[in-house]
This record gives sequence, C-alpha cells and structure tokens, in this order.
Amino acid sequence: MSSLQNQTIVLDSRPMGIPLASHFRISSQTIPELKPGEVLLKNRFLSVEPAMRGWLSDAGNYSTPVGIGSIIPALALAEVQASKAEHLAAGDTVVGMFGWQEYCVCNADIIERRVVDQGQGLSVHLGVLGINGIAAYFGLMEIGQPKQGETVVISSAAGALGSCVGQIAKLHGCRTIGITSSDDKIRQCLDDYRFDAALNYNDPSFSQLLAETVATGVDLYFDNTSGAISDTVAPHMNNFSRIVVCGTAAISQWQPKPLGPRIERDILIKRIRMQGFVVFDYQARYNEAIQALSNWLAEGNINYREHITDGLPSALDAIASLYRSENTGKRLIRL
Amino acid sequence: MSSLQNQTIVLDSRPMGIPLASHFRISSQTIPELKPGEVLLKNRFLSVEPAMRGWLSDAGNYSTPVGIGSIIPALALAEVQASKAEHLAAGDTVVGMFGWQEYCVCNADIIERRVVDQGQGLSVHLGVLGINGIAAYFGLMEIGQPKQGETVVISSAAGALGSCVGQIAKLHGCRTIGITSSDDKIRQCLDDYRFDAALNYNDPSFSQLLAETVATGVDLYFDNTSGAISDTVAPHMNNFSRIVVCGTAAISQWQPKPLGPRIERDILIKRIRMQGFVVFDYQARYNEAIQALSNWLAEGNINYREHITDGLPSALDAIASLYRSENTGKRLIRL
Repeated sequence: MSSLQNQTIVLDSRPMGIPLASHFRISSQTIPELKPGEVLLKNRFLSVEPAMRGWLSDAGNYSTPVGIGSIIPALALAEVQASKAEHLAAGDTVVGMFGWQEYCVCNADIIERRVVDQGQGLSVHLGVLGINGIAAYFGLMEIGQPKQGETVVISSAAGALGSCVGQIAKLHGCRTIGITSSDDKIRQCLDDYRFDAALNYNDPSFSQLLAETVATGVDLYFDNTSGAISDTVAPHMNNFSRIVVCGTAAISQWQPKPLGPRIERDILIKRIRMQGFVVFDYQARYNEAIQALSNWLAEGNINYREHITDGLPSALDAIASLYRSENTGKRLIRL
Repeated sequence: MSSLQNQTIVLDSRPMGIPLASHFRISSQTIPELKPGEVLLKNRFLSVEPAMRGWLSDAGNYSTPVGIGSIIPALALAEVQASKAEHLAAGDTVVGMFGWQEYCVCNADIIERRVVDQGQGLSVHLGVLGINGIAAYFGLMEIGQPKQGETVVISSAAGALGSCVGQIAKLHGCRTIGITSSDDKIRQCLDDYRFDAALNYNDPSFSQLLAETVATGVDLYFDNTSGAISDTVAPHMNNFSRIVVCGTAAISQWQPKPLGPRIERDILIKRIRMQGFVVFDYQARYNEAIQALSNWLAEGNINYREHITDGLPSALDAIASLYRSENTGKRLIRL
C-alpha cells in the first residue's frame, strides 16, 4: 500500500478574493501506512462550496486559513478502503472534510457520519442531505425563525442552499420569493423549487419588480449575496423582520471593506435583527436536520439538482465557476 | 377655565436632518373645556430626546411624523390641575406624552403612569426612572444580553441613556468602555458612572486607543451613534457578539442613505447579531425596569446628571444642542 500514489489539489498561491484555477496546483503524494485509529478513504464525490472562498482567504474567517502547499479542505463522500479504526470497515461510506484529493488517510475521529444509499444515490449526502440542506434548515429555522404567512426573500435562490431554504420556508406556510441570475433559473425556482415568485437581478427592472412583488414588505431575508442585491431588498424589510447573513457571494473583495448604503437607521426604526450564520456551529445537532430533510425528501416535498463533473482536474475552476453563477445545482466532482 | 391661554411649541417647517430652533414656533392656544374622561395637566418638566429627530422627520420611522403646525410630541412630567377622569385627582403627578406646551388637556388614557417623589425630586421620572433608564434596561438586558465578564462598549456614554447602560452592565459583572466627546465627559464616565475605561472619539489617536483598550475584543456594543464611531468599533467585535442599535446620533441626514463600510462579512464570519431597539415596544413591561432601577438608585448603584434650563423658549434649540453634544446630563426644560 505504501507505493499507492494520491492525486491531490493544493493551494499554490493565496487568492485575493475569488479563488481561480490559477491559485491551485495538482500534486502527487505517496500514501502513508495506516496507523492505529486511522482509515484509508477513496473519495467518490468532492463538494464545491461558495464558503471555500473564505477558507482559502487569509482575511479573518471562522476557520484558520489553508497554508500554501496544503491540500484544499473540502467536504467529500468516500468509501472506506482499509480501516485500523473501531466501528469502521472496508466498504463503509462516510462523509467528512476529506479534501480535494483521490485518497485520504485520516484519523477516524474526523469522519462526520456514516451514510447509506436510500435510493437517491450517495451524492445527496453532500447536498440536500448534507451541508446545504443542513445549513438551509438551521439558518432558516434557528436564525430566520419563519412564521406561517410571512414573506421570505432568498438570494441565490436556485443554488443548492437557496433552493432548499425556499422549499423549507414554503413547507412552513411562508410566501417565498427567489432572487436569481437568469431566466432559466427563474423557471427552476418556480417549477422545481415551488417559489411563489422569482426575479432575475440582472433584469434592468429588477428593483421595480421586487418592489411590486413584495408590496407588503419582507419578513425574512435569507441573504447569500450581500452587495447590490441585498441593498435592493433592504428598504422593503418589515418591522421586526430578520436578515440571515449566510453568504456574501456578490462581493468579490473584502479588503479594504467595500462601501454600501448604511443600514443602521432601518435596523433601528424597524427593529430588524440581522445575524450571521455558520452551519458548523450546529454540528452537534446535524442529525435533527438530516432527519427532517430525509422525511421531506421521501414525501417528495424537497427537490434538488446536481451539477456533476468528472475527474479531479474539473475541480480547479469550480469555485470560480460558482461565483460566475454557472452551476445549475449542487456542484460536485465525481472521482 | 375656557379663557386660560396655553403657550405651546409647534412645528413650523419640516427639518431635513437635525431639528433646529428655526423649525419651531411658539404659539398660543385657548385651553378647551374638559370633557368626561379628560384631565387638565400643568407640565412641570419637558423631556428632550435624541429620538425626537425621528419623530419630527417624514422619513420612515416607528411613529407617524408630526404635522406642520402640530404641537411637538414629547414626554413630560405634569401635575393634574382638574380631572373629569376616574382614579385621577388634582395634585396627582403623572408622566406621559404631553408635548412641548405649558398645559395639556387630554384623555386620561394617554397617561403613562402616576409617580411620587421618593426623595430624588420629580424630574428623575423623566430620566433614570423614566424613558432613559427604561431604555437602558431593556436595550441592554433584552437585546444585548450581557454575560458576566464580557466587554461592553457604549457610544454616547456620558449621555442620559449611555451612562445608565454602562452602570447596569457594570452591575452585571461586565467590563465597561465608554466612548464620549470630550475629556470632561471622560471624567464623568470614569468618576460618576464607574466605566472601566472611557475614550474621546475626537482624540486623533481614538482608533489606536480603542484597539488597545479592547485588545480581547468586544462582546456587546451598545450603539447610540452609528457613523465613524461605530465603524471604528466594528472590527473589534468578537464571535457571537451583539450590536444593540439604539440611536444614530452621528448621522445628521439619512436621505439619501449615507455610505459606510459594509459590515455583512463581519456579521457572517463572527456570527454577530445586530438588532434594532425601540423602548416603546416594552411599554407593557416598564414597571419591571422601574422597579429594578429604583432599587439600584436607592442602593446608590446608579448615578445620573440632569441638565435643566427654565422656560418654554429654552426648548427651541434643545434638540440641536443634544446633537452638538452640549448637554451635560439628561436634558430637561423646567416650566
């Protein structure tokens, strides 16, 4: 086993803003012998998240930035090939931060959970039954706290996270309005994800269309973008409304801090609660979300799309591609 | 009684930004006969609040803007002169929105509460045992949720509200840091209001001094100013910290919205909760705050200052004077 080679993607230079293919490099490493407590994993699917921009930045973030030359940290779905850990055997399928690489040798402690195919294919455990569904669930329910009959606006609404937020809000009796980047994605929002309305922010009449669509105001804004899109939503927030700050996809550069219209006066007079959300804070409660999502999925109440490409090199441009809004569903790399 | 004349201050023109003396006009009105359920009040003290800027603006606010020619709405402390209402008799002292005028004829329903002098003088019911103390109590405890050992930063720290917030936070085991506008007010913060540290935002080294003073970060920022002061505090917010948005005294004009550094990225990665606070939302619970504040006052644990001028005309410039940081305590007009 010591002669087995592992193809990996490592950080070649520090991105200022969005990580591009040119910031990465494919590298080959010899796989070490397993020590007690360790497992050898063969990655089957690698996940691509907008949040990886933050993980790779050396600006302040909730995680320590990745070192130059280090393997890109990422969620992955893997098959256990060999195990020197209790409770894990060859053939098990597991999810965790196994990184952008073919194989992963790691202590079994870092494995997040074991999963089984329940008929939807294994990749679903990286999307709607994984980080995206879990983030949608806790971000919406814990931070957003939707109430029956409320109007919920979601940016990046056709994305893996936003589409799930919209459907969960709808299941809780809310009116859902999605903001997305193309007319094709508007159709996805309406047909696949059952939004009550969907708008294209690239439409020159976006601001006016939004004002008409949310004539009675917005009770909950699930913000995946920040920037001009959110500035257009902000004046429509109702009294006692909530803004879940979950992503900042529309801002490519945070150093120095870009300027935007000050929101403090609206926050004050409308008693808005604006709160940041990072899914990893809920790790101890993931099962609660997975259980709820599994039920909705089984009942046909949650739809999702996947956008899968094959082979490790197809990961190189995948983060940048997300920020260009090119993905048509949960972005995955199949190995 | 119908020949009794009432001196009033009315809105003469709509302020764009801070209300100046020139936006007001003194007017004389004949006092009407009392109808059943009404009382005739003689105002003894009129209150001056930074929030009156919002009440007089026709920009969106939590209250309907005052009409041109209408009496300026304001909290006041008054003595009942005549009563056609149950449970109220001549000689009672009451607090409510009686307006900037000598007399007020109103339905007894609008009276907020009856008060008695407990040895500190009656005016205390418009300050530390009134709107300012109550706002400090609920803003800090309900929105800010301070925990023992946390670092709390307060802007407008020597003001009627800020000084009370600082002392309540201190009573809850927090380290308190006040931001104020002069070296004199720094001394008030340290000597009278027991802040652990106080800084003058006009000091050219303010940014550096703040960074040194909050080296371990800020857990709770009670924001009465917005603007450059708050922009200086923001980068120091800790993970899971709270920003209570209680006032925007540093911004004179909100239409069009001024630009400031975007805070969404910090809110996201640090899971900051930023929330607006308006004391009137807690009206049903005022007694809870007054009880706590009365106890602290009786124990000598809350200090306060009053800045009183005499006569109705001295109210004309009083709001503008607050925004010029000229007051040295709770700003009151004695009639």
